Amino acid sequence: MKLIKVDMTAKTIRVEDLPAAYKGLGGRALTSGYINDHVPATSDALGPENILIFAPGYFSATPLVNTSRLSVGAKSPLTGGIKESNVGGTVAAALGNLGISAIVVEGQAPEGETWLLKIEPDGQAVLIEGQAYRDMRTYALVEKLVDEFGAKNSVTCIGPAGEQQLSAASIQTTDMDGHPCRAAGRGGLGAVMGAKGLKALIVSRAGKNADPMADAEAFKAAAKAYAKAVKADEFSGEILPALGSACLVEAINEVGAFPTRNAREGQFEHADQISGETMARIIRERGGKTTHKGCAQCIIDCSNEYVDKEGKYVTSSLEYETIWSMGGMIGNGDLDAIARLDFLCDDIGLDTISTGVAIGVAMDAGYKSFGDAQAAIAMVEEVAAGTDFGKIIGHGPAAVGKHFNHDRVPVMKGQSMAAYDPRAIQGMAVTYATSPMGGDHTAGWVVDQNLEAFGGTLDRFSAEGQVEASRNTQIHMAAVDSVGICDFAQSGLAAPGGIENVYQMVAAKSGQPFGEEDWQALGLRVLKAERAFNRRAGFTPADDRLPRMFYEEPLPPHNKVVVISDAEMEATFDF
Amino acid sequence: MKLIKVDMTAKTIRVEDLPAAYKGLGGRALTSGYINDHVPATSDALGPENILIFAPGYFSATPLVNTSRLSVGAKSPLTGGIKESNVGGTVAAALGNLGISAIVVEGQAPEGETWLLKIEPDGQAVLIEGQAYRDMRTYALVEKLVDEFGAKNSVTCIGPAGEQQLSAASIQTTDMDGHPCRAAGRGGLGAVMGAKGLKALIVSRAGKNADPMADAEAFKAAAKAYAKAVKADEFSGEILPALGSACLVEAINEVGAFPTRNAREGQFEHADQISGETMARIIRERGGKTTHKGCAQCIIDCSNEYVDKEGKYVTSSLEYETIWSMGGMIGNGDLDAIARLDFLCDDIGLDTISTGVAIGVAMDAGYKSFGDAQAAIAMVEEVAAGTDFGKIIGHGPAAVGKHFNHDRVPVMKGQSMAAYDPRAIQGMAVTYATSPMGGDHTAGWVVDQNLEAFGGTLDRFSAEGQVEASRNTQIHMAAVDSVGICDFAQSGLAAPGGIENVYQMVAAKSGQPFGEEDWQALGLRVLKAERAFNRRAGFTPADDRLPRMFYEEPLPPHNKVVVISDAEMEATFDF
Repeated sequence: MKLIKVDMTAKTIRVEDLPAAYKGLGGRALTSGYINDHVPATSDALGPENILIFAPGYFSATPLVNTSRLSVGAKSPLTGGIKESNVGGTVAAALGNLGISAIVVEGQAPEGETWLLKIEPDGQAVLIEGQAYRDMRTYALVEKLVDEFGAKNSVTCIGPAGEQQLSAASIQTTDMDGHPCRAAGRGGLGAVMGAKGLKALIVSRAGKNADPMADAEAFKAAAKAYAKAVKADEFSGEILPALGSACLVEAINEVGAFPTRNAREGQFEHADQISGETMARIIRERGGKTTHKGCAQCIIDCSNEYVDKEGKYVTSSLEYETIWSMGGMIGNGDLDAIARLDFLCDDIGLDTISTGVAIGVAMDAGYKSFGDAQAAIAMVEEVAAGTDFGKIIGHGPAAVGKHFNHDRVPVMKGQSMAAYDPRAIQGMAVTYATSPMGGDHTAGWVVDQNLEAFGGTLDRFSAEGQVEASRNTQIHMAAVDSVGICDFAQSGLAAPGGIENVYQMVAAKSGQPFGEEDWQALGLRVLKAERAFNRRAGFTPADDRLPRMFYEEPLPPHNKVVVISDAEMEATFDF
Repeated sequence: MKLIKVDMTAKTIRVEDLPAAYKGLGGRALTSGYINDHVPATSDALGPENILIFAPGYFSATPLVNTSRLSVGAKSPLTGGIKESNVGGTVAAALGNLGISAIVVEGQAPEGETWLLKIEPDGQAVLIEGQAYRDMRTYALVEKLVDEFGAKNSVTCIGPAGEQQLSAASIQTTDMDGHPCRAAGRGGLGAVMGAKGLKALIVSRAGKNADPMADAEAFKAAAKAYAKAVKADEFSGEILPALGSACLVEAINEVGAFPTRNAREGQFEHADQISGETMARIIRERGGKTTHKGCAQCIIDCSNEYVDKEGKYVTSSLEYETIWSMGGMIGNGDLDAIARLDFLCDDIGLDTISTGVAIGVAMDAGYKSFGDAQAAIAMVEEVAAGTDFGKIIGHGPAAVGKHFNHDRVPVMKGQSMAAYDPRAIQGMAVTYATSPMGGDHTAGWVVDQNLEAFGGTLDRFSAEGQVEASRNTQIHMAAVDSVGICDFAQSGLAAPGGIENVYQMVAAKSGQPFGEEDWQALGLRVLKAERAFNRRAGFTPADDRLPRMFYEEPLPPHNKVVVISDAEMEATFDF
């Protein structure tokens, strides 16, 4: 349980034991707690006082499946608040196998310097001058790093967008095939990494010193039961392997909650061209891969490898949120163009959600037409080229709205919402508005509780029960993001006895009793730290709101607006 | 005492009596009170819910000298808080002579529409379709308006920057010669006017229905004594007529408080080339005008008319703050270039302070070199051309800092400071940080109390007494901006018995007793309304701070930093 502290100003590295205050914490609990404790809330997110912290989930590198989840934390240059951005791939497992609980990156290298941070098989860390890697896109970068350092590493890096310190810059990390296609996308944390002068984190995958277990047998037993439930579940056992997250396109579009053309409509007439079913068929016909393993320890294989007509690799993995942001949101029904945009964002180091929505806002403001995929590709390329307009796109939807004096900008706390229109699923209005993360779907995904087809019992057009649903889900997810279980493996949690398996695994690893109250306490601890940071950063209840468009513009075809009152929003975190 | 309400959405105009709640108020007390009462604090500053209010000072159109002061109020797109921007010229006297206490502009014309608002000699208001005036720069606009409507009008208008809704856009108004060279520059209120679709306000100067006086004789007697004191004072009676506000260049540079090259230094080695003395000499040699009357009812004549080598008009009036922002701040010692930049800003409708500082930040970030006046001119022209980079400059220094990832941005609440470095005059640190206006010098100019040469007794490098000085001056100035006396005619207030003359004039106009307590109460009322609005808009004590550079970078030649503590900042408004 080591903490590696890297001072980018002094170029020093210290390896410490994880401080007692953070013992037993991983993932989001560790990143948010650490940021809240150590970063002055009003500091410049791109300045030396901000800290970038990488922490694998508490379960990473344990025998439990689907636990290679990395939390990246910092003050966000996009929202101005605290941020935890969660990503899969292989890095979390690699760090866990090295016995590393967190890497803390402090200070700032002088402008113009570029550095690599390498974690050796023995867990030692070293800073390596990286001028030769400057301005490289991520795919070429990873190739060059493999040439230099070998393939048995996990690479977590930024592209030109992060180096330009753009607010929608992502941190990309390699998947099982070594493609830098897994993104800690939200919150602009790539810009924070860029500001520190850190181009890439190279982590050996050869570690064998995972945290000791208090009761390895008990852990294994619970982990086995958990894995069985994941496999047995229809969604994680059959639908996700076949269609990936893209299975949601049809489902969400059908209920009129698929934000289309910058959220002017709730249904996209070309949804069938970009659905999970269509995508899987195209991939199969062309000889690409569905049921593809993207992350270490994954047993779901929801990933895919999208290929072109010649069968050549285009991108991995084409996901629901990107199909929406680069598809419906910009009026584009061309799946090949979506795949290209997904690749470009990964390669340049951009959040696909924020970037697609930024393009959608530009199109809504009259700059290029909805559906013009070539224009969208050109805009993303402008980001890499560093043109004035490219920087505006790269700073995300709010910057684009300001540039065009356009106020239809679907952001909360500066960050764009995701692929569920809050007017058609009111519970998502609560999550978008109140999450300390800003507009975010994973922080409190209550779509299932709102849709009958998903077993939901809430009236999705009514306020009733939505605050409670969002609150409970946000608390739960804060705990899930801390132990570090993949969102798509939550079927294991939902199964009969599933959550008890999780409690047993925490207890078995820590050697301390752990139960339902502790789980709640963990989630609350995380949210309270995040809210405290945001309050000190200057957030007020007025920031827990949606933009006017959602209260005033009825969304076709149901023609509903958001009906959650301000008082209800404020009651969400009444703890 | 009429209030004209213009609804730009419905294109309707209503003339009402000034509501009882605002009786006896003028200028800033009226604009800030009205905005605080009627504008939702979290609304979009460029949306239909914002209100733009024009209100002459309470003394405008009375026999008192130097009282053609107009307050323009709105929620600011630059600071996100409440704003009062104060300007001279002829419009306040013109409105006062028509018996108009305020013009309230509500709603928003559809995008693409351009309107003129004309106030006839009888005080009636009419909206006139103004498509033909779209995108015009202000000098050409005024010329065309004179052709169309005659010369006996005061024109208050925006240029291309306001139409583009840029955050540093000014509202320009005509001087005694009909030049649109007087600017309500701060806070981006030109963008608010542009967002409403209002290109120009044309006010007849033929009004003869000024507010009635309760005791005209008593007013006249006090006004006469006041005018005598203004004339008798050395600063307002001799120095200002001879050198204008540019007299400050030498004085402030000498004490090392002249922010140079984006505030890297406190003295500019070419200050003597841009001083008031040099300017007056050049103007005289070329046959221009010093001792020029810019505003109605002015007896100081601090204005000037700067001419080129052929004696042709360049701009009026070249003022201290502009000589600084387009001179020292960008390392430019060429007074002709400063005059050209001043003209361009007036013509395009840009705040010279914010724009000069924006250019300074760009140069500090490495975009063009300090001292490159041609590059500065090109940047301002880009604003008019509406290029991507022009918009960034036009949004002011914070936008430029973000664009270049540069954190040496001398703004408070998003608005740039003025020409007094707070490290060399600590009292200005308090005013910059705490004024509800954001970085602003007129809100609480305590330079005189800090400089021995001005009779000051405070230690300008020490925190002692600075909070109290700033607090008292801010209260006083809020009252001054409400009665509407020109800042430069404050010598009349400072003279023995001067403030009592003001009390007597308020009493003589209103028919109500008025004394020192009422004066304090007036200032406090204004500040409390402004602070209340800003609180609701989401401002917290953390917003009452300076950027880090002022606390961390010692300013040559005295090598001092700001020493006012956060607690002292927060004690400034302990009422």
